[in-house]
Amino acid sequence: MVQARVLVAQGGGPTAVINQSLVGVVQAARRCLGVERIYGARHGVRGVVNEDFVDLARQTQVQLERVAATPGAALGSTRDKPDAAYCQRMLRVLQAHAISHFFYIGGNDSSDTARIVSEQAKAAGYPLVAVHIPKTIDNDLVGNDHTPGYASAARFVVQAFAGANLDNAALPGVYLGVVMGRHAGFLTAAAALARTRPDDGPHLVYLPERVFEIERFLADVQAVQQRLGRCVVAVSEGIHDAAGQPILAQLAAELERDAHGNVQLSGTGALADLLCEQIKSGLGLKRVRGDTFGYLQRSFLGCVSEVDQQEAREVGEKAVQFALDGDEHGQHEGSVAIQRVGDYAVDYRLLPLAAVAGKTRVMEDGLIAASGNDVSEGFVRYLRPLLGSSLPQAHGLRDHPVARLLGA
Amino acid sequence: MVQARVLVAQGGGPTAVINQSLVGVVQAARRCLGVERIYGARHGVRGVVNEDFVDLARQTQVQLERVAATPGAALGSTRDKPDAAYCQRMLRVLQAHAISHFFYIGGNDSSDTARIVSEQAKAAGYPLVAVHIPKTIDNDLVGNDHTPGYASAARFVVQAFAGANLDNAALPGVYLGVVMGRHAGFLTAAAALARTRPDDGPHLVYLPERVFEIERFLADVQAVQQRLGRCVVAVSEGIHDAAGQPILAQLAAELERDAHGNVQLSGTGALADLLCEQIKSGLGLKRVRGDTFGYLQRSFLGCVSEVDQQEAREVGEKAVQFALDGDEHGQHEGSVAIQRVGDYAVDYRLLPLAAVAGKTRVMEDGLIAASGNDVSEGFVRYLRPLLGSSLPQAHGLRDHPVARLLGA
Repeated sequence: MVQARVLVAQGGGPTAVINQSLVGVVQAARRCLGVERIYGARHGVRGVVNEDFVDLARQTQVQLERVAATPGAALGSTRDKPDAAYCQRMLRVLQAHAISHFFYIGGNDSSDTARIVSEQAKAAGYPLVAVHIPKTIDNDLVGNDHTPGYASAARFVVQAFAGANLDNAALPGVYLGVVMGRHAGFLTAAAALARTRPDDGPHLVYLPERVFEIERFLADVQAVQQRLGRCVVAVSEGIHDAAGQPILAQLAAELERDAHGNVQLSGTGALADLLCEQIKSGLGLKRVRGDTFGYLQRSFLGCVSEVDQQEAREVGEKAVQFALDGDEHGQHEGSVAIQRVGDYAVDYRLLPLAAVAGKTRVMEDGLIAASGNDVSEGFVRYLRPLLGSSLPQAHGLRDHPVARLLGA
Repeated sequence: MVQARVLVAQGGGPTAVINQSLVGVVQAARRCLGVERIYGARHGVRGVVNEDFVDLARQTQVQLERVAATPGAALGSTRDKPDAAYCQRMLRVLQAHAISHFFYIGGNDSSDTARIVSEQAKAAGYPLVAVHIPKTIDNDLVGNDHTPGYASAARFVVQAFAGANLDNAALPGVYLGVVMGRHAGFLTAAAALARTRPDDGPHLVYLPERVFEIERFLADVQAVQQRLGRCVVAVSEGIHDAAGQPILAQLAAELERDAHGNVQLSGTGALADLLCEQIKSGLGLKRVRGDTFGYLQRSFLGCVSEVDQQEAREVGEKAVQFALDGDEHGQHEGSVAIQRVGDYAVDYRLLPLAAVAGKTRVMEDGLIAASGNDVSEGFVRYLRPLLGSSLPQAHGLRDHPVARLLGA
């Protein structure tokens, strides 16, 4: 029987389901004989260096289930990226509390932190098992079919564009929504699943995996506008030109802003506003509106995929199983990864930390339409089962025109 | 028995429940003996002048119920504000189709349109009954306890701020959300109902009913930041200085932007961005993020209050009852208004069109905290029953700290 002291922490941007993974770890650890302590570090690795721990074993089951259903990061999170010295301080604290198993729930950066801490523990001869538990709305972890948190954020994007399409059909014009995802377009691509009928928006989808050209963009918008009298566009915040320069920086430079007006490259509504200006001035259209979905897409309370919830719970459970019992190859340490094994079913594997750490997955070519301004049918098939059930549906009146009496 | 030909149209910004009112009209009209036609005009009054009608009697009950549950405006909407000549053309079309009852679902502008059409019909000796059916997320119609569409938009704002508060607690900093409502702060005020525990955000709420002073605002944010290490702020897009000048215009002027950079006063992320810049430069804080909720708050598919749905349906039904049978004073024409008659129950009255048309309600003093940067308890009691049931709840871990072994 293993004598284990478990520490779990959450890193990076919160999601709708990161607390499911936390609760998955706690519940699985509770069921293991030999687990003497289940601690949580407050605000990720910073809670480790600051020795800021909470005793998760004292939480009631009722409260844990409530927390699991709550978005955000219940332990608190951090953007700290530990260097060697930082990790040394972490190790000192882990040793003082005789922590044997460290679970870090997070994205690329968190997997890299788990890797560094693991390496330093080995170098110091300290027996620590470090396991990374995947989480990111960007869906950009290599080795995973998809990542916990992505499906719920995708569902938000779907519901947002389905509603925006209805609004735009009622009051025609151009609507543009800017979606998170600096390097990977998965979340922006989700907008495509908002379509029910052939003329539904988004009519155009721009991803960071493709070069963005203003002229091409304006021609695309104009063509849709001429065909339908309106146009709904999904744009990734990470769109860039052929040289890799962000479009926001390019447009902002054209504005020749003075020293007072420094342009912030993210977390602002500037990209949507500047693209709308381009459409107005370039195409002479008047009713052009842009929204930047911002933090709502990762934090909105009450928009969640139950498939995402269940998988986020399972990666937490599987992390504890792997760490304490080992995987089929006898490995205890690594990064838990979701594998699709059916349509639709998943299984979990333990990948080496170095195989995931610090790497970024982007959308594979097969998921993007040849036109470069939309997703492929393959992407729709890929995402649909992840969104969960009871997705709200949009319905319109059937067309029964009344004959004119006064002539057209 | 009345021989009636009914025409219904939708005007202004779509909401989550405006189609409930449309279906309420159709269903009620179907039950009335003597109603020979139930037409809808596409895109509001524009559909009237263009003689662009659909036969709503041919819709199935199943489809009508689906449409009722869909946000947007199923008939299409318009921003047209008819003048006398426009109304003359409308009357000509109404007469050609022998329309006896005109129902216009919309806000202040739509009620004014109904008033003008009614007056011109009377002047022309044409027997038309015009009824305005209330709708606006701004909740700014006089004579109403609240308006259909407001509660669902308010629910979006509540869920958005509840989630933003959790995100902000996980990764502390300043978060600012800009909410719609140029003159009335009701929708921004809804953010206050996102709070569960004493330290929950939004910690500050700025309404257009109070003068906004940048210095006071920065001092407020600093005080919350010092107390909690974080701060969540709800801001109305309509905040203005003592002279009534929008704060966005004031901040934009300080930026001394050149001729290329015209500042748009609404429908952009500029106010959130500029206020964030003020906080960063004025208070020296680094992690400051701003979102502009934009169209999401009125169009998001799947965020709706069932109280709002039911009342939106009822105002449509009552409009037909009043128009065909008359109210208790024998009036047939007017604007349907929601009255609160219990905690919580409502009733419906028919107000004269001129009593509602073109007037704007703002938040009464009793609904705003004396501090001027929050709502009152009275507002919380006012809004709570409107939000509907099964509002998602946020829960955190209970505090069970682990004793430090290495010292602070």
